Amino acid sequence: MPNVSAYGVPSVKAALEPMTIGRRAVGPQDVRIEIKYCGVCHTDVFQTQDGWGPGVYPMVPGHEITGFVTEVGAEVTKFAPGDRVGVGTYIDSCRECENCRSGLEVYCTGSGVVPTYNSRDPDGNPNQGGYSTAIVVDEHFVVRVPEGLGLDVAAPLLCAGITTYSPLRHWNAGPGTKVAVLGMGGLGHVAVQFAHALGADVTVLSRTLGKKEDGLRLGADHYYATNDPATFDRLAGQFDLILCTISSAIGFDAYLNLLKVNGTLVNVGAPDEPISLDNWSLIPMRRSYAASSSGGVPQLQEMLDFAAEHGVAAVIEQIRPEEINEAFEKLERAEVRYRFVMDTAQL
Amino acid sequence: MPNVSAYGVPSVKAALEPMTIGRRAVGPQDVRIEIKYCGVCHTDVFQTQDGWGPGVYPMVPGHEITGFVTEVGAEVTKFAPGDRVGVGTYIDSCRECENCRSGLEVYCTGSGVVPTYNSRDPDGNPNQGGYSTAIVVDEHFVVRVPEGLGLDVAAPLLCAGITTYSPLRHWNAGPGTKVAVLGMGGLGHVAVQFAHALGADVTVLSRTLGKKEDGLRLGADHYYATNDPATFDRLAGQFDLILCTISSAIGFDAYLNLLKVNGTLVNVGAPDEPISLDNWSLIPMRRSYAASSSGGVPQLQEMLDFAAEHGVAAVIEQIRPEEINEAFEKLERAEVRYRFVMDTAQL
Repeated sequence: MPNVSAYGVPSVKAALEPMTIGRRAVGPQDVRIEIKYCGVCHTDVFQTQDGWGPGVYPMVPGHEITGFVTEVGAEVTKFAPGDRVGVGTYIDSCRECENCRSGLEVYCTGSGVVPTYNSRDPDGNPNQGGYSTAIVVDEHFVVRVPEGLGLDVAAPLLCAGITTYSPLRHWNAGPGTKVAVLGMGGLGHVAVQFAHALGADVTVLSRTLGKKEDGLRLGADHYYATNDPATFDRLAGQFDLILCTISSAIGFDAYLNLLKVNGTLVNVGAPDEPISLDNWSLIPMRRSYAASSSGGVPQLQEMLDFAAEHGVAAVIEQIRPEEINEAFEKLERAEVRYRFVMDTAQL
Repeated sequence: MPNVSAYGVPSVKAALEPMTIGRRAVGPQDVRIEIKYCGVCHTDVFQTQDGWGPGVYPMVPGHEITGFVTEVGAEVTKFAPGDRVGVGTYIDSCRECENCRSGLEVYCTGSGVVPTYNSRDPDGNPNQGGYSTAIVVDEHFVVRVPEGLGLDVAAPLLCAGITTYSPLRHWNAGPGTKVAVLGMGGLGHVAVQFAHALGADVTVLSRTLGKKEDGLRLGADHYYATNDPATFDRLAGQFDLILCTISSAIGFDAYLNLLKVNGTLVNVGAPDEPISLDNWSLIPMRRSYAASSSGGVPQLQEMLDFAAEHGVAAVIEQIRPEEINEAFEKLERAEVRYRFVMDTAQL
């Protein structure tokens, strides 16, 4: 069990600190990855605080991982040492249930999807995430980072990217559709790019117009402030799809009213309090309120290929490992444009 | 403005009483219908009590209307005197907006759909419903009741039927899909028949097993009691579609958990209080919570034709007009199997 350097929390709500963790020996179907970059997701903060409790501690967060393959098991067929690869939000599933066989591993109904960290391996040992120098993962859950897509700006796509790309595809964002992206943060700024690249007419709905220039540069056709009540009159009944990337339980009725007939609001935020809806916000236009997780492995690869082809990439601020506690604080204050990415080579 | 006999409430929350109302002269595109039967919908009770307030009084309820054409306007092309016809939950819309032009008149975004009663005509006069001996309606909003479908058992299809048929079609109930019908009342007992006739595997979820025999006879393949907690374990992750026909805000999270990946719970009940959802009931299986209104005119006709072809009909208890107040009370206590239908010829 070769040891690697990492940053993690020893216990619930502790500050992150340097630590040494073990990684398993490379099994027949495993690849060992030298991690170069790891994105800092809002759920990392949440999970170190036991927001989804009960968590597994000590906890090394990080599920937006990119790097190079350094070693492959005897039965590995997809990868060779030197390959540029990524690992996202999960590293195992049953691979036998209907969803797994359909490439929807994230919706595994067998033993269940195994998150990249804050979970346990079959022996009961904690799985540890990407704030570290290396990781060993079954090749099935590893994807290729196409040439032309930087490992640093690709890292956040492994969670923020797929979490927005997947619902945009599932709910048919494309030419002739009007898509609103609610929230212009880590997920929202990627969603705007994907929706635009898919051919949709894209509107950003953000609290203020503070990031309007960025939004338009990233591909938005329109940008409205939600702190202006006129926005809700002006845009009533306009959208086929609203992708909500906000993590709190906002008043959704006002947003549902912006949907056309048959429109869907997909909330990929994960508010920890219940959300409240008036059924009459849905009935008069046959609207839907939905939510989704990240995406299956085949779609994770498709998303990276699509990103490389269309020039979609996260806008990042690189941080050194020792800056992670400060980054967490900034993240909670939404002071990041638009994703922190840890340079794990500095570990 | 020929007068006709009716039953209605003179003011909010009053008892229903005999009254005489005027019907407009037959215009060029109108048909005059001698009403034979009118179904008694739960929303009739609700609206006489001003549940959707502010209502239009005096109010003659009734939007599940069947009868015979007795007179047609000069420009009418679809109907002739003697035709067996029906009128549902609305009698006008703008007919120019995208939804109207797509045959989704119930989702009119122009001047808005005009309910059959508890609404006003262009001159500001109250529109009055089907608890009466005759009605005059633009032919566009009149549908044909096929031979072989009794006018009495067809009447409830004009609301209860289309309100369940439409979402079953929209969300693709059919061979290979598993559909649960939540509630075995006026809407539920018709939904079971439609879902079965469409080829779906049908489960009824009712509070108790009291109506199990009826449910199975009407086409359900399975029947479970929701007052038994084991039901929720046994059926977890089973359904593609759950059609909720219950009018109160139940705990939906437990039902959402019964959906497969990509499953949808459609609530055609109209709870007047907000509903509460945990986003985590949706995220892990990309589930949707939706609602819908009745259906467009073309689908209303399609539904009646489908019902005639497949032997779908409401199970009714005929009442005389003077029994309507008692029927309202029974309806509020859910003491009807399964729909009261007023024999308006007795007026």
